[in-house]
Amino acid sequence: MRLATLKDGTPGGALAVVSDDGTRVLKIGDSLPILLKLMEDWDAGQTTLAEAQNKLASGQGELCKSDAFAAPMPRSWQWLDGSAFSTHGDLMQVAFGLDPIDTDRPLMYQGISDKFFGPTEDVPLPTTEHGIDFEGEFGVIVDHVPMGTSAADAMNHIKLIVQINDWSLRAIAPIEMKTGFGWVQAKPACSMAPFAVTPDELGKGWKDGRVCLDLEIDLNGEKFGAANGAAMDFGFHELVAHAALTRDLVAGTIIGSGTVSNPNYAEVGSSCISEVRAIEMIRDKGPATTPFMSFGDRIRMEGRGIDGSSPFGVIDQKVVQA
Amino acid sequence: MRLATLKDGTPGGALAVVSDDGTRVLKIGDSLPILLKLMEDWDAGQTTLAEAQNKLASGQGELCKSDAFAAPMPRSWQWLDGSAFSTHGDLMQVAFGLDPIDTDRPLMYQGISDKFFGPTEDVPLPTTEHGIDFEGEFGVIVDHVPMGTSAADAMNHIKLIVQINDWSLRAIAPIEMKTGFGWVQAKPACSMAPFAVTPDELGKGWKDGRVCLDLEIDLNGEKFGAANGAAMDFGFHELVAHAALTRDLVAGTIIGSGTVSNPNYAEVGSSCISEVRAIEMIRDKGPATTPFMSFGDRIRMEGRGIDGSSPFGVIDQKVVQA
Repeated sequence: MRLATLKDGTPGGALAVVSDDGTRVLKIGDSLPILLKLMEDWDAGQTTLAEAQNKLASGQGELCKSDAFAAPMPRSWQWLDGSAFSTHGDLMQVAFGLDPIDTDRPLMYQGISDKFFGPTEDVPLPTTEHGIDFEGEFGVIVDHVPMGTSAADAMNHIKLIVQINDWSLRAIAPIEMKTGFGWVQAKPACSMAPFAVTPDELGKGWKDGRVCLDLEIDLNGEKFGAANGAAMDFGFHELVAHAALTRDLVAGTIIGSGTVSNPNYAEVGSSCISEVRAIEMIRDKGPATTPFMSFGDRIRMEGRGIDGSSPFGVIDQKVVQA
Repeated sequence: MRLATLKDGTPGGALAVVSDDGTRVLKIGDSLPILLKLMEDWDAGQTTLAEAQNKLASGQGELCKSDAFAAPMPRSWQWLDGSAFSTHGDLMQVAFGLDPIDTDRPLMYQGISDKFFGPTEDVPLPTTEHGIDFEGEFGVIVDHVPMGTSAADAMNHIKLIVQINDWSLRAIAPIEMKTGFGWVQAKPACSMAPFAVTPDELGKGWKDGRVCLDLEIDLNGEKFGAANGAAMDFGFHELVAHAALTRDLVAGTIIGSGTVSNPNYAEVGSSCISEVRAIEMIRDKGPATTPFMSFGDRIRMEGRGIDGSSPFGVIDQKVVQA
């Protein structure tokens, strides 16, 4: 099943179901107005969702227009972003000029969750001096996860999978990181691809709590990367259990993978500019040459199945001056 | 004006106004059901609040019972906690065995905001092996703050002041801090004193964006500390502007001061156990002796005006095994 949120002028938008072929969409209505509400009682909502799917199958609904979609979860109570691809972590420490992080635990920070940009919305940021970068990621949305839930049990709480662009400001990131407090200024609101999908929708693309899809990324129409999500050091179920050790996870919590990154980056490319810059620094034993983003630059991201499918739809948006 | 939230079985509770003498409380009702709603349009809510105050003045309302109160903001979209008392920062780096933090910027992390415990609720945590500690703080609640708001303008967005216990797990904190990602496991949900007050309510106790009140803290009925909130290195307006550099702050964002701490700690005491342990380590050139909290331990916190007033009411709660 694929869910989406249609823009309707409210912060939460209107929950909708998308047809199996991804071409048509049907708004649910007052019985289940927003995705956050569904997450609070997933099982109770299934009848309503099944009815909507039946209506879609019988031809009801409207043609999908990319500009009509908000993020499937336009705001939530909690966004916890991991950094589960060690290739990314290793390269970022080079980019930031910091020592390697010595830990065998999952890395995770809490970020802004009151706003996720829709897939085609312009993203306003104050200045290019902050070093504007994208980070292509996958993420999961859970229902209520009790404190102390094991990784095995956490798997059952993963109800939806999403595709995320975690906007990042690289001139500020190492300064904040050095304090040990994590990022506030360096991590403005993220964006989401239009469709949140149930794990079964990915077929063999969902394995061991990992999204085993290539994340195709184009910057200003040029191929930038297509790293695969299978390379996570920890599965999403392990990230969920990590987060739930000392807190209940509120229904609707979104947990991110961190930037998708593969050891064979020379072959598949990267999912953020900063990695490319680190690769240049290592290769050339000198300063990086690839610039960060300018206002007007356009970033496109699309998770792609082996069969060519596009379960999450496309993020395609530009960064603009605030 | 003093606002509170009465428990009513819902996550957001029921917004209420408290009488000037702090003894009676009146529920607002459907016109303004929760505090988060008020923060979204502060000015529009003032007529409703004034009517409730008039009713209270004419004798309506109920007697305050401490167990009836939830946190004034039981959940919000965003909680950003500063660390604006440098005495606290210096002592914590000793406690954690880490190098001093070399920065002239405000320190801030994003924490869990979907749950704030009420002032008398038991706080369940998984194990005392995590090093359970309290942190006495003040905080502010803002309405919508546009990205790039200056510190001077931020002052006008500070609508309410609150008193917070930022529960902290000290065995995990330095491990997470060393990664640079900030705290997830080390920072479970906070608690709030029952009353959120407008700045004018504090009189001379609100100065330069600082809460100039002693924060009286008792642990298991024994005096623990009474540090004053005036010693912040940055005022709350500066913390708000810091947070808003690259993001709009959603209405209802709560910003914390960090643990209230004074350079003359030998005289006034501390607002968390970890500071006391650091002071012991420095003084005795050896290990700390004061233990962290055990299940059943009770913590009491009350911000106290020069005139003996208690604008926020009292946090008085115990930690229990989850």
